[in-house]
Order: sequence, then structure tokens, then C-alpha cells
Amino acid sequence: MRTIEVGILGGTGMVGQHFIRFLQGHPWFKLTWLGASDRSAGKKLKDAAGWRLEGEMPAAAGEIVVSDSKPRNAPRLVFSAMDASVATEIEREFAAAGHIVVSNSRNHRMEPDVPLIVPEVNPSHLSLLPVQQRNRHWSGMIVTNPNCSTVVLTMALAPLVQFGIERVIAATMQAVSGAGYPGVASMDIVANVIPFIGSEEEKMQQETQKILGSVENGQAAPLKARVSAHCHRVPIVDGHTVTASVEFSSRPGIEDVQSAIESFCGVPQQRDLPSAPRKPVIYMREQDRPQPRRDAGRENGMAVFVGRLRECPVLNVKFVACGHNTIRGAAGAAVLNAELMVSEGLLD
Amino acid sequence: MRTIEVGILGGTGMVGQHFIRFLQGHPWFKLTWLGASDRSAGKKLKDAAGWRLEGEMPAAAGEIVVSDSKPRNAPRLVFSAMDASVATEIEREFAAAGHIVVSNSRNHRMEPDVPLIVPEVNPSHLSLLPVQQRNRHWSGMIVTNPNCSTVVLTMALAPLVQFGIERVIAATMQAVSGAGYPGVASMDIVANVIPFIGSEEEKMQQETQKILGSVENGQAAPLKARVSAHCHRVPIVDGHTVTASVEFSSRPGIEDVQSAIESFCGVPQQRDLPSAPRKPVIYMREQDRPQPRRDAGRENGMAVFVGRLRECPVLNVKFVACGHNTIRGAAGAAVLNAELMVSEGLLD
Amino acid sequence: MRTIEVGILGGTGMVGQHFIRFLQGHPWFKLTWLGASDRSAGKKLKDAAGWRLEGEMPAAAGEIVVSDSKPRNAPRLVFSAMDASVATEIEREFAAAGHIVVSNSRNHRMEPDVPLIVPEVNPSHLSLLPVQQRNRHWSGMIVTNPNCSTVVLTMALAPLVQFGIERVIAATMQAVSGAGYPGVASMDIVANVIPFIGSEEEKMQQETQKILGSVENGQAAPLKARVSAHCHRVPIVDGHTVTASVEFSSRPGIEDVQSAIESFCGVPQQRDLPSAPRKPVIYMREQDRPQPRRDAGRENGMAVFVGRLRECPVLNVKFVACGHNTIRGAAGAAVLNAELMVSEGLLD
Amino acid sequence: MRTIEVGILGGTGMVGQHFIRFLQGHPWFKLTWLGASDRSAGKKLKDAAGWRLEGEMPAAAGEIVVSDSKPRNAPRLVFSAMDASVATEIEREFAAAGHIVVSNSRNHRMEPDVPLIVPEVNPSHLSLLPVQQRNRHWSGMIVTNPNCSTVVLTMALAPLVQFGIERVIAATMQAVSGAGYPGVASMDIVANVIPFIGSEEEKMQQETQKILGSVENGQAAPLKARVSAHCHRVPIVDGHTVTASVEFSSRPGIEDVQSAIESFCGVPQQRDLPSAPRKPVIYMREQDRPQPRRDAGRENGMAVFVGRLRECPVLNVKFVACGHNTIRGAAGAAVLNAELMVSEGLLD
Repeated sequence: MRTIEVGILGGTGMVGQHFIRFLQGHPWFKLTWLGASDRSAGKKLKDAAGWRLEGEMPAAAGEIVVSDSKPRNAPRLVFSAMDASVATEIEREFAAAGHIVVSNSRNHRMEPDVPLIVPEVNPSHLSLLPVQQRNRHWSGMIVTNPNCSTVVLTMALAPLVQFGIERVIAATMQAVSGAGYPGVASMDIVANVIPFIGSEEEKMQQETQKILGSVENGQAAPLKARVSAHCHRVPIVDGHTVTASVEFSSRPGIEDVQSAIESFCGVPQQRDLPSAPRKPVIYMREQDRPQPRRDAGRENGMAVFVGRLRECPVLNVKFVACGHNTIRGAAGAAVLNAELMVSEGLLD
Repeated sequence: MRTIEVGILGGTGMVGQHFIRFLQGHPWFKLTWLGASDRSAGKKLKDAAGWRLEGEMPAAAGEIVVSDSKPRNAPRLVFSAMDASVATEIEREFAAAGHIVVSNSRNHRMEPDVPLIVPEVNPSHLSLLPVQQRNRHWSGMIVTNPNCSTVVLTMALAPLVQFGIERVIAATMQAVSGAGYPGVASMDIVANVIPFIGSEEEKMQQETQKILGSVENGQAAPLKARVSAHCHRVPIVDGHTVTASVEFSSRPGIEDVQSAIESFCGVPQQRDLPSAPRKPVIYMREQDRPQPRRDAGRENGMAVFVGRLRECPVLNVKFVACGHNTIRGAAGAAVLNAELMVSEGLLD
Repeated sequence: MRTIEVGILGGTGMVGQHFIRFLQGHPWFKLTWLGASDRSAGKKLKDAAGWRLEGEMPAAAGEIVVSDSKPRNAPRLVFSAMDASVATEIEREFAAAGHIVVSNSRNHRMEPDVPLIVPEVNPSHLSLLPVQQRNRHWSGMIVTNPNCSTVVLTMALAPLVQFGIERVIAATMQAVSGAGYPGVASMDIVANVIPFIGSEEEKMQQETQKILGSVENGQAAPLKARVSAHCHRVPIVDGHTVTASVEFSSRPGIEDVQSAIESFCGVPQQRDLPSAPRKPVIYMREQDRPQPRRDAGRENGMAVFVGRLRECPVLNVKFVACGHNTIRGAAGAAVLNAELMVSEGLLD
Repeated sequence: MRTIEVGILGGTGMVGQHFIRFLQGHPWFKLTWLGASDRSAGKKLKDAAGWRLEGEMPAAAGEIVVSDSKPRNAPRLVFSAMDASVATEIEREFAAAGHIVVSNSRNHRMEPDVPLIVPEVNPSHLSLLPVQQRNRHWSGMIVTNPNCSTVVLTMALAPLVQFGIERVIAATMQAVSGAGYPGVASMDIVANVIPFIGSEEEKMQQETQKILGSVENGQAAPLKARVSAHCHRVPIVDGHTVTASVEFSSRPGIEDVQSAIESFCGVPQQRDLPSAPRKPVIYMREQDRPQPRRDAGRENGMAVFVGRLRECPVLNVKFVACGHNTIRGAAGAAVLNAELMVSEGLLD
């Protein structure tokens, strides 16, 4: 396999740093380009930004001279870690110039001709890409991954789509790393719960419907299930926990549901993509698991953990799910999307 | 008003200490007796137990010589802060011996002739007491208050009973103080979420139905609404947060629901009981409130705070509620129950 | 006693909010004026700023129309809660215009003719004020209180000055509330220690020498003791902990030191000033106290708690001290300074 | 290299679990035996104990049938993770029966013929072993590693011994994982600092002197430096932070000290032992590092990180150090001791 050069738009921010770390030692992708604001352009990364993550800035990345956010010299495959306030125009400009933009930003997620992909859940939605190129007269393309809490919920629900999901009520307990840097003020969250995260509930509700839906007539056709989200920030570092009650049209028993979860497998596993976890969804039988600090980082942070499957007195079943928000919920999600696209021949 | 002497069963434990603190300076009740295990009996409180709460042990309480858990010299009104493993027999023995046992323990809560009271919500359930005395041939009686998370939910729901509650899905984020001492190991909860609290979901589901229900034919008649609880421990000190989605038979609008909450008032407020908060349920209009660290302790920890009332795409409305688990959810709940009973003449 | 109108410079910031809360219900001082930047001027406080502290904005304060930071209509006594970046010029302008500026800002603390006061420790340093007025041709004056961690250390050391303090090594564990709002990013401090707080060590070293020193020839004459500080941020909400090893010229025994701490009393106590704690320094005999969450807020947050007095194998004695950083270390410190000044007739 | 079978005494406890995890995939040592109390003996580990660490119990270890704590069938090399309350007699029994006991327990650390080893600091102290065997008529032997906070301090000081260490004052901020399981109650430590850890200060003072000392006449001869420790628990998961002021007889400059730290290397590095970090002490130049959450786990948790080297106004220099308490401070320390012993031919 040849090495594919990749770039990161928004490479100096915290999400960009998660990409840099996740791409270290990647067998297919080699990071050679970082785009950022004019303020950073022309500086080496190590001079342009402090490292916010564990440990130290990877030395090779630190030597990359940051570019401005123009397509000019960027490699064909570009990950977007840009802030939503600037992503719309720049991502479009790159796609128009022939780049494959694999974006973690929310800006294009809900557009009907933009695939919103979780590779284990809806890889077939990549079929929107030719439509997108035609609609927009782009030689490149934009592919997106969902919001960090949505990834956890949709991966836990993916094995259950077969039972006919009709209604979902979910409540989240989200880590501070999900808010970027500086993100949440410590005065707001130390020993506290904040019962509000801007736009998060709407994203979780809409994105879940799109991901679990289908493609019809060259458009994303959201699942008709009703989804309600309650989102909360809690004082933990990494790992989003989602608790959910679900109603199914086919009224499966608890054993059927558990068995569906335990046997679930996806395209990334079948194709043995480099960042694919061995099992995408891992069911834990201990009564007090999964837990974000003990479980979210396992399997390189790429699996989602589910536990406490039981009957719900109001809907049908309830359970708790947990996943790593900055890996499976962001950088790792985008990289796995790119790996899926490579495996589909989209980069040939 | 004359002073009423009171005792505390389980007076050396952490819940007992919350009672001691809450009763300090009480205008009606004077703490004169503490019952505990034989191991502590005969010692002054200050020699029998370390003080686990903020500040120092109240000096007067520290001088009380702890008794064994026998009715003998105890005052007529006794609060029970006993561990569930021992409460059943001892509470019955006290009731049989003529004592009024106002218990925070879970042991008798679900018995059909034992009132499970939140004074603002179901004061009329005290009418079970003559039945209880008759059934059990007791000269005394047992009255209970609910589990700490149930108090928060039922107070938030009380103003909404008029709309015909049919289904409730609730998720909690509970403080470590709710687990007593030593309670939750710090290795389990620092920077973590534990998605399980033993028996908590069952308690929340059943107790809510009983409290919001009625008394029929001398028995508690639980509300026929379906209730589903998801319970979680989070790394905060005090204050339980409950997020809920609710379905009503009468389909009220958001404004009707908010108006019902804001105008809600109860018997403790009407009678100006000493521990009654001015308003039992306080609606907060800020988009990110209530929060446990900033709100639970307001109004002496006796009010419940509700916020973020909005439409639920799955049921009808959703909101978040927060209250102080060791005050409104335990010691303060029991003391307010006793005040209600005094105001009903039950101690005359 | 007549009521004295007071204002707050920097009234919309987080330190300003601590002043607003501390002044609520003050028996001598009535808050009537708030100064802030031009951006806030002309708005009611409730429209100019969100409330960051527990509970809700005091209603009366919320109705005050914010002024710009000009002396014009401000009352004679003004507390300064301004950010250090702007305090120098504005405080001088107010003092020149005849105002008594009682400042929590660091800007003027180390000037030799500006009193840096802890009322229990060095009230006599107010004698610098006539010199200051002469030096600067001011009809008003500036009085300062120390940095939040310095207050804790100097109050613990004040009873020990009599033994001849020669060397002090202190290490701090400081709460996030000491950094203002938004202050420390939660990604930096949740489940972490940050071993650096900008300028804090220098402030603690120099301010301690000035406060424990004397006034000679109309100038502050710092104590010649050597002081070394190690400052750290830890993930707690309120309360700074300071651990210290001290060397004395007179080599007192542990009992002498403890007895000096326990019998310590100051001018605010003798004069029964409204915000004075009953005892300024409270010695705790429990082996694991004081603790910030359990102790810092006691005595209205105005006392300093000391414990674990024992021999130091390197210097003479060591101990741990703890106090409330936003009350005794900031707003309460300044208000007590103002009360001391009133009691000295400086506002007549 | 042949594989060496190893056992763990105290294999069901939390420290034992750290050993199990650390030994996973070890190139020299293969875990085949676990000793524990009679209560666990005869059960498979997975049935005898819950897994307290991140992730799940390693499957192979889970299948080991736990033995009682008798030498009988144990392998020659045994790690001791036993609680101090039982370690003394059992460790001696194993050493008498010919076993090489590499102990993390405190019980034998301070005996003059028992090596207390940090392999990078005092490998030559292994020369006590023949004396120990002679003194005690043992065919086996006991080797110990220090307390978790002592490891961090002594590794930071080791490069500085050449300057003549005369006095050290250290203050620690220690993680909850250092207290085992259930260890610290969450009610004591969430949003709090506990300024006391039983016996910790004495251990840190004495063990530091022994480790930095020499062997004279077949006995450990402690360094004559005076050491004073202040120990505190803070609400973090892993990683002990130690801040220190040090006085040297040779009065080196800051650059000399930093250069000594940066060039420091030890026997484990020279011999390339499997668990040796590339550099034992890593100096960080950022002004706010090292930090426990961001640094302690780097280099597999086996390095100690030092930063903020600067002049101390009281002694000569001060700095902050940080290391992983359950790895470099416990299980990893013992395993590296065993590797050192293998490299010395002590297991031949």
C-alpha cells in the first residue's frame, strides 16, 4: 500500500491536535500539511501553538510550517478540524478545488447531499458523493462524521435498527474535553453538573435520524423514529456516557437485543481497516459498567461500550453506552471515514 | 409554642449527623437523645464518632451520651437515620412502644399502611396512620420520607399531576454524599461516572407512584403512571440532578406547565412550617440552570429547582430538576414531615 | 452608627460579584454605586453581567445602573475589584479626587507609602496614609489587602512573629475560584495539578515580608525573614491550603507555638468590627484538618484555620493553614480593612 | 533469554492488580502463581476478585487458581503486593524457604540489611543481600522498593547528590490511587484536599535518607541530609507531584543543576532493562509542567518528570517533580528491581 499524504485544516486548535496525535504512526496516512489562520501561517507548528494534550507535541508535526487555509499546496486528502464559525466557506473552497474534505465540523452534516458517516453504521451513504459532485459542480467532495455524543448513541443503536426503532429518549453525561480549549471554565464545572450544551440536543436528535436513515433518490432520507436528547456536562476528562430508553416496532426480548449487540460487526471490521476496533460495540456484563474513565480509552478509544441492558417500564428496553469523545467521537471517526473511502477506491 | 424533645436513631452515622446539623437551632425541636449500636452506647457522641460534615460537631450534641437502640428513655418523637440493614425491627419496636418514628430509612416506605410523605405533595396520606395503628396494634406510628432522588422528581412533578401524568422517563446524576460514609470509593468516582446505584431505580419508580398516588380504602393507591429511572453517580459533593421527559393525558402547552410550576404552593408554605422553603419549587429561566453546586443549597437546601422546560419530541415536555440530597432529600425531609405532623395535631 | 455609602470599581467582574455578595446586609456599608468599563456603563447590573456565584444576583444590586470608572458621582469610599491591567491609573485618579480606595488589586500593594493591611496583623501600617497623601498630593488615599494565598500565610504567621521569624518555606494548593472567571480551563485542572500560577510566588514572598514588617521613617520596612513559596492550582472550588516550615530565632517549643496561635487576637476582634471573625486563627487538633471544603467557609469565611503543628526536621516547626480565598482572601479582606479604617476615624 | 516464572503475593488486592497489569507481555517474566488469603485460595482469580483498574482483567491471569500464601508451589521469584498488616511474617517465610521476594510493602524497607532500591539511584545497595542471607540464615532474600512518593523525590534528587545534599523540604500532592481500594472515601476528597496521609511523611523522610545513602560495613548508612516532608492527598486519579527546596554544600548554579538532571542516566538504561525508561528523569522547560494527568503516564509511567527549576530564597534551589505512583511508585518499581537483580546474576 502506498502512503497517502494528508493535511489538517484547523491544525493548530485542540481538535487539530487530536488529529495530529491520532495520525501518528498511521500505516496509510502521512501528515504533511497543516492549515490555520493567517496569524499562524508561516510559523512552525511548535512555534504557532501550545500542546494541550497529554505528553508533548509529536516532534515531526512540530516542524511542519503552517499554511494559510487555501487549497494551493494542500494534499488531496484533507481533514477538517476547523471551528464551525469558519468551516463552511473554506471546506467548500477545498472541495471545489478537487480536495477530499473529511470534516469533523458540524457545518455540512445536515445537508441532504453530504454523507454523514459512521463507517460501521451507514457506509452505503457514501453513494451521496456523486450526487454531491454533480449538484455542486465540485471535482472534490465533503464527507462528515457526527457530533461526539451522536457517535456513541448511533453505534449503540446500529445493531438494533433491525427491530424497528420507533422512539429514543437519551440523556448524556459529557466530558469537558468535548468542549475544546479553553472550553468550559473550571468555575462552572468543578464539583458541578451543567445541564446544557449549546445546540447539542438538536444535533443529537437530527444527526441520529440521518445516520440511521437511508439514501433515497440521491438524498439522505432520515429515519422516521422520534429522538429526544437531554445533554449535560459533568466534571470528567474524557468519555461521553449516554443512557437511553428505546421503543421498537417488533418488541424484541432483552436476549434478542443483547445478542444483536454482541454479534454486531461492520464494514471496517470486515475490511480490517487500520483504525477499526476489533469489535465496534462491546457489551459489558458487569452491573456498573461501562464507565468513562475505565472503559472509554480501551481498544484505542475506537469502540463503544454498552451495558445494563434491561426492560424499560415506559418504552421497551434501556441501556447505557459510553465512548471516547475525542477519538471515536472526533479525530478517530474522521480518520476511519477516510480509511473507508480509501477502501472504496474513492482516493484512487 | 412549647419545645418538643426529639431523638435520633442511628445518631452516630453520617445520616444521623445530617439530622444533628439540621436540627441545630430548630424553633420547635430540641435534640436530647441519640440511639446507636451497643458499641457506641454509653459514650458521649464526641467520643463515639468523628464528624464527617463541614465544620465541627455541634458542641451540645457532642455532649449527649449515646443510648442503645431501645425505646426505654427515648423521647416520644424519634427520627430514624438507621442503616436499612437494621431499621426494620428497631423502628417497629419503637412504634409498638408508643413512639412516633419519622424515618428516613427505606425499610417501611412501600408498605401500604405506611405514609410515604413529601409534605408539599401528599400531606393527606397521613390519613393512613390510624389504619396503620389499627392494623399493627401500635400505640405509636411510622412515617417515612422518600429516597433522595425521588424527592427531587416528585416535587418537580407535583405541580403537573393536574395535567394527568401518564409516563415519565428520568435520568439522574447523583452526588457522592448520597451514598453515606465511607460510601463511594474515590477510585471509583474521581473523574468518572458510575452508571449504577443499587436498588435506586426501583425505589425511584415505585416511590414516585406511591407519592403521586392517593389513599383508597385505607391503603396507598399508587398512581397508574409508568415511570422509568436511569440512575448515575457523578463526582460532585452535594445535590442530585434529575432530567425528565413526561407525557400527560391532557397535553398541556409549555406555558401551562411552567405556569403550574411557578404558582405551585403546598401545605407547609400555607402553615409557615419552620423548615418550609418560601416556595417549594423554584423555576429558573437561565438556559444552563439549575446546577447542583450553585443551586442545591439555596433556600437552606429545602427547595427544588427546575429549569429548561421545553417540548420533548418523544413524550410531551422535558425539564431538569435539582435539589439537595442530604437536606431536602433526607434530614430536612424528615424534619418537615415531623413539623407537618405537629401542625396536624398528631403530637398533641 | 450612620450608614456609609460605598461603591465598587470593577463591579461587573467576578471579584466585584464577591464584593456585592459580601456587602449584602452589611450593618455599616450600603452599596449604591458600581463602576465598570464603558461597555457596561449605563446598563443596569442585571443587564450588564451574568451572575457567576452560587444562587442568584442580589436583587437590589441588579437594579444599580453601572457607571463608567470616573470619580464623578462615586461615593467617597470605593472598593476596587478591578483587573490589574487597568487598576493603576483609575485607582490613582480616584485617590487624587478625594476618594478612599480600598483595593483588592495588586497594583499598588508594594509601593512603600501604600499600606498593605491584614487588620489582625498590621493595623498600625495605616500610619503610612498621611505620608502617602503628602507624597502624592492626594486628598484621598489608597489602602490595599494582600493576595489571597498571602492572607492565609500571614494570618497563620502573625501569632509567631514574637518568636523571631527567620525563614519560611511555603507550598500552596489553591482553589480555582482564585483565578476569576473564566479563569482556569477545565481541561487544565479536572483531575490534575498545575504547578504554576503566574507571579503568585513573587507576590507571596514580597507581600508576606511587607505585612509582617514595620513602618520606619514613614515607609514600609519589610521583615528581613527569607520567604520561599511554591504555588500550585488543584481541582477544588474554594479555599486555599498553605503548608509551611518556619525557622525562628528564639527556637520556641511546639507547645509555645500552639499556645501563641490559640491565644492570638487582633484589633478587629477587640473592636468587634462587623466582619471580624470571633477568633482570627483557629487551631484544629484533628490530625487531618484543616481541609478547604470542610473548613474554609466556616466563620463566614473570615477565619484562618491551622493544624498539624509539629517539629520540622529541617527548620523548626511545620504546620498547615487554610482559608477562604474569595472571602478572607479578597472581598472580606477589603471590607474588613474599610471597617478598620472607619474604627480609626479615617472616614469621619 | 529464558522465561522466568513469577508469582504475586497479595495477588487479589489492588496493588496485586497493578502488578498483573504491568507484567502483561513482559519479555522475561511470566506470571504463573498468585497467593492470597485463605478466603480466595482455590478460586480462579476472576472468581476471587473484581478488577478495579481500567479495562478488564487480563484473561490469562483471570484463569490462575489462587493459592494460599505458603511457599510450597510458588515460583522462586515472588513479588509482594501484600498489605503491611500481614507482610512481615509471610515475606520472611518465603525468603527462608529460598524465594527471592521483591516487595512493594513497607515492612522490611528500613531494616539495615534489606536493600531499599531505586535501580537508577542506588543499585549498589544490592550488596546488602549476602549480609542479609548470612544474618538471617536465609537461602532466599528480600529486596524492597520505596514508598510511591519517595520514588519521585529520590529520582529527582539522584542527579544532585554530587552537589552535596544537606537539607530538603518537600511537599506532596498525591493521587487517590496511592491509597488502594476502597482507599480514600469520596466524601473526603471530592473537591477537597486532605493534609494528612498516615505515616507517609516519616516514610518519605527516612527512606530518602536510606536510598541516597551508602552501604558501610555491611549495613545501610543513611545520607546525613535532613529531610522534611509535608504530605497531602488531592482529588486526582494517578500521579504524585512533589515540590522541593534543596540546600547543597557545594552551592551549584541553576544551570549546573539542570544540566545534571538532563544528563542523568542509570544502570537500567545502560543495561537496557526491559522496563527501564529511555531517560529516568526528564526535565520539562514549559513553565507549568510537569502535571500529573498530562505527564505521569508518559514513558509507560516509568520516568520521573522535573520542571520549574529555580532559585529558592531560603535554601538553594527549588523545583517540582511528578511521577506515576502505581507504576514507577509501586508495581513498575518492583519489576525493575527484579530486572536489575536478573542482570546482576542474582537469579542464576
